[in-house]
Amino acid sequence: MHLRTPNPATLTPPDVVRAAYAELVVTDLARARAFYVDLLGFVVTLDAGSALYLRGYDELMHHNLILREGPAPAAARLAYRVRSAADLDLAEAFFAGLGARTARLPAGTTPGVGEAVRAEDPLGFTVEFFADADWAERLQQRYDLRRGAEPARLDHFNIVVSDVRAAYDYYTSLGFGLSETIEDDQTLYAAWMFRKQTVHDVAFTGGAGPRLHHLGFFAHESHHVLRTCDILGSLHEEGHIERGPGRHGVSNAFYVYLRDPDGHRLEIYTSDYYTGDPDHPVLRWDVSDPRRRDFYGHAVVPSWYAEATPVLDLDGNPRPATEQHQVLESAVGADGFRIR
Amino acid sequence: MHLRTPNPATLTPPDVVRAAYAELVVTDLARARAFYVDLLGFVVTLDAGSALYLRGYDELMHHNLILREGPAPAAARLAYRVRSAADLDLAEAFFAGLGARTARLPAGTTPGVGEAVRAEDPLGFTVEFFADADWAERLQQRYDLRRGAEPARLDHFNIVVSDVRAAYDYYTSLGFGLSETIEDDQTLYAAWMFRKQTVHDVAFTGGAGPRLHHLGFFAHESHHVLRTCDILGSLHEEGHIERGPGRHGVSNAFYVYLRDPDGHRLEIYTSDYYTGDPDHPVLRWDVSDPRRRDFYGHAVVPSWYAEATPVLDLDGNPRPATEQHQVLESAVGADGFRIR
Amino acid sequence: MHLRTPNPATLTPPDVVRAAYAELVVTDLARARAFYVDLLGFVVTLDAGSALYLRGYDELMHHNLILREGPAPAAARLAYRVRSAADLDLAEAFFAGLGARTARLPAGTTPGVGEAVRAEDPLGFTVEFFADADWAERLQQRYDLRRGAEPARLDHFNIVVSDVRAAYDYYTSLGFGLSETIEDDQTLYAAWMFRKQTVHDVAFTGGAGPRLHHLGFFAHESHHVLRTCDILGSLHEEGHIERGPGRHGVSNAFYVYLRDPDGHRLEIYTSDYYTGDPDHPVLRWDVSDPRRRDFYGHAVVPSWYAEATPVLDLDGNPRPATEQHQVLESAVGADGFRIR
Amino acid sequence: MHLRTPNPATLTPPDVVRAAYAELVVTDLARARAFYVDLLGFVVTLDAGSALYLRGYDELMHHNLILREGPAPAAARLAYRVRSAADLDLAEAFFAGLGARTARLPAGTTPGVGEAVRAEDPLGFTVEFFADADWAERLQQRYDLRRGAEPARLDHFNIVVSDVRAAYDYYTSLGFGLSETIEDDQTLYAAWMFRKQTVHDVAFTGGAGPRLHHLGFFAHESHHVLRTCDILGSLHEEGHIERGPGRHGVSNAFYVYLRDPDGHRLEIYTSDYYTGDPDHPVLRWDVSDPRRRDFYGHAVVPSWYAEATPVLDLDGNPRPATEQHQVLESAVGADGFRIR
Repeated sequence: MHLRTPNPATLTPPDVVRAAYAELVVTDLARARAFYVDLLGFVVTLDAGSALYLRGYDELMHHNLILREGPAPAAARLAYRVRSAADLDLAEAFFAGLGARTARLPAGTTPGVGEAVRAEDPLGFTVEFFADADWAERLQQRYDLRRGAEPARLDHFNIVVSDVRAAYDYYTSLGFGLSETIEDDQTLYAAWMFRKQTVHDVAFTGGAGPRLHHLGFFAHESHHVLRTCDILGSLHEEGHIERGPGRHGVSNAFYVYLRDPDGHRLEIYTSDYYTGDPDHPVLRWDVSDPRRRDFYGHAVVPSWYAEATPVLDLDGNPRPATEQHQVLESAVGADGFRIR
Repeated sequence: MHLRTPNPATLTPPDVVRAAYAELVVTDLARARAFYVDLLGFVVTLDAGSALYLRGYDELMHHNLILREGPAPAAARLAYRVRSAADLDLAEAFFAGLGARTARLPAGTTPGVGEAVRAEDPLGFTVEFFADADWAERLQQRYDLRRGAEPARLDHFNIVVSDVRAAYDYYTSLGFGLSETIEDDQTLYAAWMFRKQTVHDVAFTGGAGPRLHHLGFFAHESHHVLRTCDILGSLHEEGHIERGPGRHGVSNAFYVYLRDPDGHRLEIYTSDYYTGDPDHPVLRWDVSDPRRRDFYGHAVVPSWYAEATPVLDLDGNPRPATEQHQVLESAVGADGFRIR
Repeated sequence: MHLRTPNPATLTPPDVVRAAYAELVVTDLARARAFYVDLLGFVVTLDAGSALYLRGYDELMHHNLILREGPAPAAARLAYRVRSAADLDLAEAFFAGLGARTARLPAGTTPGVGEAVRAEDPLGFTVEFFADADWAERLQQRYDLRRGAEPARLDHFNIVVSDVRAAYDYYTSLGFGLSETIEDDQTLYAAWMFRKQTVHDVAFTGGAGPRLHHLGFFAHESHHVLRTCDILGSLHEEGHIERGPGRHGVSNAFYVYLRDPDGHRLEIYTSDYYTGDPDHPVLRWDVSDPRRRDFYGHAVVPSWYAEATPVLDLDGNPRPATEQHQVLESAVGADGFRIR
Repeated sequence: MHLRTPNPATLTPPDVVRAAYAELVVTDLARARAFYVDLLGFVVTLDAGSALYLRGYDELMHHNLILREGPAPAAARLAYRVRSAADLDLAEAFFAGLGARTARLPAGTTPGVGEAVRAEDPLGFTVEFFADADWAERLQQRYDLRRGAEPARLDHFNIVVSDVRAAYDYYTSLGFGLSETIEDDQTLYAAWMFRKQTVHDVAFTGGAGPRLHHLGFFAHESHHVLRTCDILGSLHEEGHIERGPGRHGVSNAFYVYLRDPDGHRLEIYTSDYYTGDPDHPVLRWDVSDPRRRDFYGHAVVPSWYAEATPVLDLDGNPRPATEQHQVLESAVGADGFRIR
């Protein structure tokens, strides 16, 4: 955290609408396509040869996920949609005010996406902000096409940060609201923050950061989560199922976590709740409540806390993950504590 | 429509957050309680003797529905939450600018609700705007308590208006976005408009207005809709099921319509979609597409178009319903047309 | 009913295991394939050029449904599996004892089916009995392949008969048990009879018979029924949805009725109950209970009572449908009676 | 195994219909009632003070489960229904022929159950056979009453035996069919056997036996399994959830395993398949396939293999559990093996 602390008195954040898309580097695009498209049912908006542009069935924007072939698995950037072109200027000024490296990219730099601002944010992630995007064909009512997990749209980014409190402060300065936390008297272990009216657009898991913990995709009903698992089992690809199906205490959502062929983690996620009212009350979970991570009380598998995806800087180079500055939830929280 | 047309250049609308609650007059409160609470599972926040204050299991506000005992079935008012106290002044000025009768009510006039502005809107409905409300106990994760339809929260008001175009214009001036329509080259037959990031907070059905067509309550999954019907059949109360279960073309939601013991209509509604992006594209249904009202092509029962709840003015007196000014969808749309 | 009444003292029925398959004549096999295979997801065991052999995903027998191209829509035969080869002799003697025309067919006459006995039964239907069948590949856990309605297996035949009491007597003599009826003091309007441990293998609807009312296919959960409807709506093929989705009073099953491109009726059916205990108690529905046919109280569409598939005799010629000998349920039962 | 080997040439087994009920000894009946009735929703047929007689919502027999208060947790007996009174004589002769202790009990010894034969079977379990039982009120279509897991009926017994092959041989001699196994070239680790037309009425898990591994109760849809877990989490009773929700490879059923307040294990189980055809083909799982026990590849928690309920002899005294005679699946099967 060598960056200057944002000064809310002088920095006006852009009006962020929602988590919009992420770009993942995969080492074998054909293998990734087989996983995301053939098994999980993502919709291909564009196949650009060395990259695939994918979306969910409800998504009206060009894409929610870019898979780009590259030498090593990484998360190239996390992109947020902002309300208007004026917000691009605000975004640029905001990150410049933080002393962050930024870049302004003309429309079309990313297919389907208008002019954009990118920055290396104070947490070490490359983030992008854009206002305009091409609309995609409305497939929401094409039940005949739906397959796999029937992903509807990107829901959220979950990122590993070495200092959850700093992440909370930074995203607060960006105008995000807080829905839930895991904490104790001393420490904020995890937090869920939102711009759209759901539990989150971004959440923070404490650990060696910056790394991407997972991308969360919304599905409409819990049987879609089960179906995802059933398909993977059918093909003896059950090793891709890392955790779940289960319900989260945090967010109340029903979930499963998958690992793609490069180890990138996805969540298929359904049934969280509306957070759009002013001063939406925060739900605070004690780190000792085993239900916070799994409402059914099961232990979280160690890999879920330990493993995550490296991130790239603005130039596309890997960023080192810094040792955590805080006590980790996985060391404190009595995951899987049984009442008997 | 003897009211002045709003002039967007001079009138600033309040920042409406969402459809928040409605007050229905029922003729037998015990009978209404048996239906809403015992059968459908609504949560009782407050039993005030002559009125019940109910909410869904996800709802963090004091109530979504007031059932007040009175001499004849009616909808007393439709209440929207606004963002801040300043929006109350905007609301008052907005309706005064329209030449509408308004009233300012101190906090607590309605239990659990802060200071409010009420107005007789240009469509003939008594609407209320409030910013503050008491928080209710969080019951979202009390699956042990859930019963019946497991209503989560109020989703929308559907109102009968004699001029759908005028209703669209008025709600546009109030800052609502448009998600879907039923139309043909000449006529706007129905429209769905939103503030929160769902398909609608309010929708218009053409007919003799002002009347309340239905209150829509959100449930999380389609099996909750089926369960609602199963319970009513179990108790030989299947006569309360007016239409459905089925899927709407408009909104894509899975639904059932119920009639309460006074004939007030409810919808249990699930699986619509996110509308929060700027310039969300409108989905326009042709009035001749039988799927617009029922994605499975079934005819809409005549009562669904013909019957609705009278509304009360600011003084609590019934307002007469005016003959429609337009060709009705029910006369034009070939509902239930079969392709064979 | 010119046939001799069976004499239980002298005729031993074969040990029928279950309703196994039906052969339907369709007028355009490519069109039928598009409906059954592409839309509804039936598994193709064999494509024999002029006929398709289809099964559900759980089915371990060669087929549940044969679609054979022919000049006019018809049901060629209804086939029951019996326990052993000895039951073929019993079947032949049983029908001979009834004075019925019978035929003995060598193994392989129908692909995948062993030696068989066919008869023109006292109700006018061509029925087949076989003990041996080829096993099919086990696809039950190939969730990756499942599509459409995800039919699991054939569940039952529903046949239109001019005399429901006679049909009941005949199937009783064949060893079938009775699970449910629709009746009043004078008349047996409909009956559900079983060999396997479900509500039925065969049911009778009163009307001009012999005709096939529908084939019922089992699906595992109610969301599969909804998905079937969603797919048809998606493709603007909603005209194939004749009735439902809904729950039956009789059988308690959740259902939808479809009409194929030739007008043959299918039911996708789930969640009935175990009937295997000795002396399983009969559930008798009064013909005036609107829930008997639709637990949600909706009226049954007239086509559902009026229309059915002609049947063929042993030589493949159409059999005339005889006027009913009894008062019809559709004329008596107050379908869709509303309690308000 | 000091008992004589049954000689199929001389011993005719009774015609077993299905697994019917079990009697469990619980140490605190009020606490057990809170779990089974208040949380899980079992129907109380009879409260006899020191014992509760419970059933599922579909069950037409008097009970599926007896909870009797006693000094230590135990399984008193496992009861099978047989087809007729004559089968009681066959049962008595069958077990006498095996050299087993038997007892003949007059009707009403167990409330709701007719005359019965009990025996200490060759595996060390006290088993009961009865033909007649009182019918219970039909509650299948009382959706208004359903709560909790909505158990429909008892599905199966799973028992721990020290010699799975011997258990298989004994139940084969009793006329049970085999649906699935876990095995390798040397060893039969587990087997599923049936009389009714489902995957099993009884299954064997290798270990120190005789002990009761679990009672399986059928629910209609997977969301009932999830709801069970949600309710337990809601009340911070998640410690009762031992394993799941998940899908079995064996049986294909979706499941959750619960431990009651005395540690007795229950399974809520849905979506297995029809096994009624003659010569139903056996599905054999290799012990090294991680999907056999969990189709999603998760490791089985150690308690699930290690812990089970002691059983009582005919006099109500605990039977010692014998060390296993075979290699255990839990020691061999690479549970939770991950493909990455």
